[in-house]
Amino acid sequence: MADQELSASEREQGARFAPKFDAAGLLTAVVVDAVSAQVLVVAHMNHEALEKTLASGRVHFWSRSRKALWLKGETSGHFLNVEEVLVDCDQDALVIRARAEGPTCHTGARSCFYRRVDGDGESAVLVKVKT
Amino acid sequence: MADQELSASEREQGARFAPKFDAAGLLTAVVVDAVSAQVLVVAHMNHEALEKTLASGRVHFWSRSRKALWLKGETSGHFLNVEEVLVDCDQDALVIRARAEGPTCHTGARSCFYRRVDGDGESAVLVKVKT
Repeated sequence: MADQELSASEREQGARFAPKFDAAGLLTAVVVDAVSAQVLVVAHMNHEALEKTLASGRVHFWSRSRKALWLKGETSGHFLNVEEVLVDCDQDALVIRARAEGPTCHTGARSCFYRRVDGDGESAVLVKVKT
Repeated sequence: MADQELSASEREQGARFAPKFDAAGLLTAVVVDAVSAQVLVVAHMNHEALEKTLASGRVHFWSRSRKALWLKGETSGHFLNVEEVLVDCDQDALVIRARAEGPTCHTGARSCFYRRVDGDGESAVLVKVKT
C-alpha cells in the first residue's frame, strides 16, 4: 500500500492499492452496517488510521478536530469490526462494511444520519428519522 | 439553510439545517441507491451544489479537479434523482438516497466501489467485486 503515481487506467482498473490522500493527508471513509447496509458514519483516515484499520480489523479514524488517531469505540466500547473494505475508482474514498458493537453515533443513535432534510433554501428543516 | 453558528446541542439535535462546510467550502456527500442501499459514489458539494440538488431533485456536486459545478449525468444522462437527504450529527456530511438512471461510475460500473481491498500493508491488493 503506497500513495504511488499510477496511470489513470492502473488507478481505476488495476489490482494495486494506492490510496490517494488529499492535501491534508486524508481520505474519506464511509462505514456501512454489514447486515442492513445503512450508512453509520462518515469520517476521515490518514495513512496510519488506514493501516491500523486493515491490520487490526477495527475501524480507526483520524480526528480532524482533535488532530489525533482515533480507534472508534476506544472509550465507548462501540467498536466497528471490519467485514470488507471497498475502494472507489480513483482510490480516494473507502466504503467499509462493518459489524457495529452498539450505537455508532456519539449521540447514542445507531447511525450519525438520524435527520432528514425537508424542503430547500431558507425553508429547509431537519426532521428526525428512525435509525 | 445557512452555515450559522449554533450551539453543539442545536447543531446535533435541532431542526435547523446549518450545513458545515470545510475550509475549502465543501462537505462530503455519499449517494446510496434508494432501493438496494448500495453506496454508489462519494463526492463533494459546495453551497451552490447543495442548493441546486435540493431545489432540482437531481444530485449536483462540486468537482474538485475541474473546479466547477457538476450536475451528475449532465453529459452521460445518468442522473441521480433524489429520494431523501440525510444529514449527520455535526452537519458536515450528507447521505443522499437516490434513484440512479444508469451506471453511476464513469467507468460504466453501477457503483464507483467495484474493488475490495484484500490484505494489509505491502501485500494489500484490489479484487474486483460485482456491483
